[in-house]
Amino acid sequence: MANTPVSHAEPLDDAVAAKIRASFDKQGVMMHWDAQISHLADGHCEISLPFSDKVNQQHGYFHGGVIGAIADSAGGYAGYTRISPDQELVTAEYKLNILAPGKGDTLVGRGQVVKAGRTLIVATAELFVIDGGKWTLCAMMQQTLFVLAANPSASASPTSR
Amino acid sequence: MANTPVSHAEPLDDAVAAKIRASFDKQGVMMHWDAQISHLADGHCEISLPFSDKVNQQHGYFHGGVIGAIADSAGGYAGYTRISPDQELVTAEYKLNILAPGKGDTLVGRGQVVKAGRTLIVATAELFVIDGGKWTLCAMMQQTLFVLAANPSASASPTSR
Amino acid sequence: MANTPVSHAEPLDDAVAAKIRASFDKQGVMMHWDAQISHLADGHCEISLPFSDKVNQQHGYFHGGVIGAIADSAGGYAGYTRISPDQELVTAEYKLNILAPGKGDTLVGRGQVVKAGRTLIVATAELFVIDGGKWTLCAMMQQTLFVLAANPSASASPTSR
Amino acid sequence: MANTPVSHAEPLDDAVAAKIRASFDKQGVMMHWDAQISHLADGHCEISLPFSDKVNQQHGYFHGGVIGAIADSAGGYAGYTRISPDQELVTAEYKLNILAPGKGDTLVGRGQVVKAGRTLIVATAELFVIDGGKWTLCAMMQQTLFVLAANPSASASPTSR
Repeated sequence: MANTPVSHAEPLDDAVAAKIRASFDKQGVMMHWDAQISHLADGHCEISLPFSDKVNQQHGYFHGGVIGAIADSAGGYAGYTRISPDQELVTAEYKLNILAPGKGDTLVGRGQVVKAGRTLIVATAELFVIDGGKWTLCAMMQQTLFVLAANPSASASPTSR
Repeated sequence: MANTPVSHAEPLDDAVAAKIRASFDKQGVMMHWDAQISHLADGHCEISLPFSDKVNQQHGYFHGGVIGAIADSAGGYAGYTRISPDQELVTAEYKLNILAPGKGDTLVGRGQVVKAGRTLIVATAELFVIDGGKWTLCAMMQQTLFVLAANPSASASPTSR
Repeated sequence: MANTPVSHAEPLDDAVAAKIRASFDKQGVMMHWDAQISHLADGHCEISLPFSDKVNQQHGYFHGGVIGAIADSAGGYAGYTRISPDQELVTAEYKLNILAPGKGDTLVGRGQVVKAGRTLIVATAELFVIDGGKWTLCAMMQQTLFVLAANPSASASPTSR
Repeated sequence: MANTPVSHAEPLDDAVAAKIRASFDKQGVMMHWDAQISHLADGHCEISLPFSDKVNQQHGYFHGGVIGAIADSAGGYAGYTRISPDQELVTAEYKLNILAPGKGDTLVGRGQVVKAGRTLIVATAELFVIDGGKWTLCAMMQQTLFVLAANPSASASPTSR
C-alpha cells in the first residue's frame, strides 16, 4: 500500500505485532468499516480504509471525523510499538488539520512516533486519500498518548489515574 | 436528551433546521452509527450516539476517534446555524482532549459556536458519556470551521480555495 | 481585575499560593513583561499583562505568541493549585485559537482546571483584551499538563521520563 | 545556523524577503528578545533566539510560551512567503507539543508551509534547543494561518471579517 518504502524502520518483534493486530481486531469501529493495518514497523503504523457509505459525509467524501479516527488509531498503534508487553496506551489528545477534500476510493493513515517517554508518547500522522491511483495528502495530525499499566477496567483514560 | 436546558438560545428558523437535518441525514457515517441530532438551536447542536459494536475500541468503550467524529459534527452543525442559506461549511481543524473513558450506553456531543466571522467560525464541543443515567464529561473539543460558497464539487476543503 | 466574580471557587491554601507566586516570580519572561497574577483560587489562575513594546506584533497589537504564553502560564498555574507540595508541573501541549485582534491596554488570561488526574491535568484558558475598559474575548486555549516529582534538573519535560 | 541544508527550497524574491524582515523588525516582542530571522526561503522561515532572563521559566529553561511564540512567528513568516504583496496574514490557531526541556543557549524555530490555499495556509514548525553545540528537538507545532487584504486597522483577526 505504501508508495514510499519506509526502509529505515526496524522490523517489529512478532509478539508485539501480534498483540497490536489482536487489539486492532477488537476495535469494532475499524472492523465495521473494513479498515486494516496495512503496514507495521517499529514506531510506525499504517491503516487503510476503503471508501463506503459507512464513512462518508454529506458531499460523498470521507467524513472529517472518520479521517480523525483513522489518524487517532494510526498514531496510537505506532505508539503501541514502543511500549512494553505489560503496558497499555490511551489517547490523551489529538489535533487534526484538514488540507484537502477526502475524495477518493481509499484513505491511508500513517502514524509515526516522534518521541516516546516513559509516560507520554507524541506521535504524528499523515493522511492520504487515493483517487484512481493518485495520492493526495488530505490531513495531518499531532497527538499525545498516555502509557498505563495493562488493566483497562481500572483505568482507561489519561486523567482517571 | 439534554440534562441542562439551553433556554438562553434563540430558536432556530425552520428552513435552517431542515437544511441542517437534511445534511446530517446524508452523512453516511452518522446513519451507519444510528447517531441523531437531539437538539438544535441558534449556535448549538447536540448529537446523540447509542453504544454499539460499530463504535467501540478494544476495551469495549466508545472509540476516541468516534468521540472526535461526534465532536466534529456537533461543532460543525452548530456552525451551520450561523451561515446564510447559500453558504457551506467545512472543518479546517479540530483538537480533542479525552478526559475520561468513553464507557456508557450513550454518547452526547454538544457543539457551541464561540465566535462566528464571515469566513471562519470557532466552535467548541463538550462530550458526555451516559452510563445508566449518570453523565460524565469525557472529552472536550476546540474547532475551526471554514465558510465557503455552496458548491461542494468545486471546493470542499479549507485550503482548496 | 475580574469583571465576573468567581465566587464558587474555594479559597487557596496560603502555602500553595505562596509557592505559586514564588514560582511565577522566577519566570523571567513574565517579569520582563511586567505580567502579574491578578487572581488565584482553587483550580483558577488569572494573569494580567499591560501592553508595551515588549509584547506587540507588527500592527501594534498583542502578539499571538504572547497571548499563547499568557494562556500557557494561566492554565499551568491553575493546574499548580491541584498538585501536592512535593510535585512539579510542566506543559505537555496547548492549542490556542485567536478570536479577535489583541488590541488594547491590558491582556487578561484566565486559566481553569477542567479535570485533574494523578499524572495529567487538562486546563483551559480564556483570554480577554481590555481596551479603554471594554473587555473582548480574544483567544481561547485547551491544554494538557504533566505532573512530575519535584526535581526539575532531572526531568523537566513531559517525555523525558 | 541550519544544521541541515534546505537545498530543495526555491530562493525568495528580494522584495518579499525585505517585506518579511521589515514586518519582523516591527514585532516588539521579537526585538526585545533579540530574536532574528536566520533563514528565509520559499515556504520556509527559521527564527533564532538566544537564551536570556527575558525568555526563561522558573527552572531556568526557555519558557513553553516563548517556544510557542517563536513557533508561531516561524510558521507565520513561512506563510508570508506564499501570499501576494497586497495581502496580510494572521494566525487563526496553533497547537504546540513540548518534547524535551528547553535547556540550552539558543532556540531555533523552523517554520514550513504544508499547504497554501487562497484563504487558509497550514504550516508546521520544529523547535530545536542548542546546548553547547548539541541540537535537541524540543517542540513541534501545527498551525492555521488566515490570509486577508492588507488593511490591519480594519481587520486583524481571523474571525473579525
